[in-house]
Amino acid sequence: MAYRALDERSLPEYLRTRPALKEKFPAKADLAVTEVGDGNLNLVFIVKERGDQGQAVIVKQALPYLRVAGESWPLTRERMRFESQALRLYNTLCPGRSPEVYDDDQEMSLVVMEYLGAHQVMRRPLVERKRFPLFVDHITTFLATVLFRTSDFSLPGPEKKRILGLFINPHLNKLQEDFVYTNPYMASPENKWNPLLDKEVMAIRSNSAVKTGIAEMKEAYMTHAEALIHADLHTGSIMLNQSDTRVIDPEFCYFGPIAYDVGALLQNLVLNHLSHFGHTENREKREEYQEYLLGMIRDTWNEFARKFTTLWKENPTGDLMPAKYWDYPGGEDAFASFRKYTARRLLQEATGHGGVKFLRRMMGIVSVWDIQSIKDPAKRAIAEKAAIRIGARWLLERRRIETIDDLTRIVEEETRDISI
Amino acid sequence: MAYRALDERSLPEYLRTRPALKEKFPAKADLAVTEVGDGNLNLVFIVKERGDQGQAVIVKQALPYLRVAGESWPLTRERMRFESQALRLYNTLCPGRSPEVYDDDQEMSLVVMEYLGAHQVMRRPLVERKRFPLFVDHITTFLATVLFRTSDFSLPGPEKKRILGLFINPHLNKLQEDFVYTNPYMASPENKWNPLLDKEVMAIRSNSAVKTGIAEMKEAYMTHAEALIHADLHTGSIMLNQSDTRVIDPEFCYFGPIAYDVGALLQNLVLNHLSHFGHTENREKREEYQEYLLGMIRDTWNEFARKFTTLWKENPTGDLMPAKYWDYPGGEDAFASFRKYTARRLLQEATGHGGVKFLRRMMGIVSVWDIQSIKDPAKRAIAEKAAIRIGARWLLERRRIETIDDLTRIVEEETRDISI
Repeated sequence: MAYRALDERSLPEYLRTRPALKEKFPAKADLAVTEVGDGNLNLVFIVKERGDQGQAVIVKQALPYLRVAGESWPLTRERMRFESQALRLYNTLCPGRSPEVYDDDQEMSLVVMEYLGAHQVMRRPLVERKRFPLFVDHITTFLATVLFRTSDFSLPGPEKKRILGLFINPHLNKLQEDFVYTNPYMASPENKWNPLLDKEVMAIRSNSAVKTGIAEMKEAYMTHAEALIHADLHTGSIMLNQSDTRVIDPEFCYFGPIAYDVGALLQNLVLNHLSHFGHTENREKREEYQEYLLGMIRDTWNEFARKFTTLWKENPTGDLMPAKYWDYPGGEDAFASFRKYTARRLLQEATGHGGVKFLRRMMGIVSVWDIQSIKDPAKRAIAEKAAIRIGARWLLERRRIETIDDLTRIVEEETRDISI
Repeated sequence: MAYRALDERSLPEYLRTRPALKEKFPAKADLAVTEVGDGNLNLVFIVKERGDQGQAVIVKQALPYLRVAGESWPLTRERMRFESQALRLYNTLCPGRSPEVYDDDQEMSLVVMEYLGAHQVMRRPLVERKRFPLFVDHITTFLATVLFRTSDFSLPGPEKKRILGLFINPHLNKLQEDFVYTNPYMASPENKWNPLLDKEVMAIRSNSAVKTGIAEMKEAYMTHAEALIHADLHTGSIMLNQSDTRVIDPEFCYFGPIAYDVGALLQNLVLNHLSHFGHTENREKREEYQEYLLGMIRDTWNEFARKFTTLWKENPTGDLMPAKYWDYPGGEDAFASFRKYTARRLLQEATGHGGVKFLRRMMGIVSVWDIQSIKDPAKRAIAEKAAIRIGARWLLERRRIETIDDLTRIVEEETRDISI
């Protein structure tokens, strides 16, 4: 079927033509459709069968343009292929940590997937100081599994290159390359920032150490094809509740640096931490929750590193390196030392990417809801200035980071003197 | 036309069916064909029109198997596609430094190219202590141009990823991954070495610092997609004479680390240097030529770095980074500092890859003719042991290398006590 954008009226009829959905909905199902997307990139519909026992699905369809960037349509519509491919692979490698995919249609740039009616996008409950006791375990299992299983530590070389070829994603890459690593740090019409940050923004734009550091991190983003990364894993791409955690929206996925996903997650948790200087007036409550978040950050890194290196130790099936390579007296220790070296390298790179991403959120095309929802610009600026200080330090000090405590210590040092 | 291996009898008839060759040979040309390949990987024919004015071409056809590795045929025959694609791109980006391509036929896994009757493969004349005054200029122009023009320093992101997709070359990658970075350092049936090196070979196989260093370099080889690299640029892949230099045989090409090609070249020049302990008995002549080679190595790095960074400075057209990013007071210096950082990084990585390649040539599937042509095993062992010492030091000391002189100094230190 040739591409056409669907709407609440045409969607039920379309869904009835799809063989893959026959099990989901009876032939004469009475379907209620609600469009819930923000309309900038994609159409998102909730489709529910009327009645108490009725099932529900999400239909996500790419629009043939990307308003925000003004790109031409044919290649950008392809993003839905990357999303459905990635979700299917996630469900194979790490079942239950992403929405299940019921159907996809490349011509229509559309994917039909599990409706997560009992989950919330993570940003909002974090602002409400909710706690999620299973989150760290869930997200680190997801990250360690998907990143390990698509890397050269796990896969034979030719198989890794075959999968890499399926995920060459130039136009979505370009958006991240421009909007994370370039445009925020120079004059570019889409940049937005709190006017109270004028001085800080201009200082970053002409800080040569920061600028060359960003260029170094962009080099890694553009060239280091280590594993299938999500490439947009902020707390808006995670849906969860007290018992479950799901990763959504992998349309930016490609083979990139493992550390990028980890850095994005850690940095978004810190942004939420900072947002409480605006959201949580009660100092005791604020400090208690911020301490909780710092603990979550430490646990996330430590558990990720532990699970990743354990998977690797127990499954040295990839071409980097085969078990036989380490089969000599002392080889076990050498393999352990290579794993340790890699974990340290990933932490330092996560620090660098995370550092850049603090800066881009403060002075680029789009901030995060945690921060933007602080109404008072003066209060918001307190969190934003701290984010800029922390981002610059993470970036510049990345090569001296040895443990996750070095990272959270920077957060503590840069927020210690904030008195509200 | 379905694939069939050609021979001296069937080739003229085949060539007459090719429209692209009508200008090269008249319709009734009397063609003399000689097979000159070694038969392991490819058929190589010289085709000459009889008569004084007759033109000549080379026809190279992939055999449907790779004897040395025992791989299955369908994907490996594709290697001729990579070779013809790369040669055409080389001729576009840097005309005159590779054989011209007249025709290619994907079905037949075949390429028809310029016959270089007035050139020699570089290894042999280097063993004969010939000098090539234009070599450094030619090869550094080739390397700087091709590597820069296919990198993110020169190309827009989406265009780079488009070209990268054309050069995904998993099966030839796998050969290098195994034979350069893995198998030589463990028990593997194809490994061969001079029995006089038993002790040195076993020591490398159980040297944990060397083993983890090799794993780190392999990680870069497998994941750092910086530019279209030749990936087999030893002195057997260069044909030259006093006035001309050509790069041949790019079948292993793919998007990999820029430093790999540079490291391969420097390391092969050092191997030739060492081979003169076996080939050149007259000490004065030997030392003079070895000094000449060390000068060539220094000039090759320095000229490569100068040309690469100059191209970059004058053509900041790539997404890493656009000129506008550096457009602020002090930005020019920051850009210069990023170029300098990159050149230093490339030198250190070239040292690491070169170091590994010394080792693999001494204890893996195949050495180099410069060394193998030393008949006396005891004399050969002198060069080979030095190669192992230098290789291990290049690898282990790579992060402390600041200039090319640091590299050649290691060669001098490890050959100083050789008395023949």
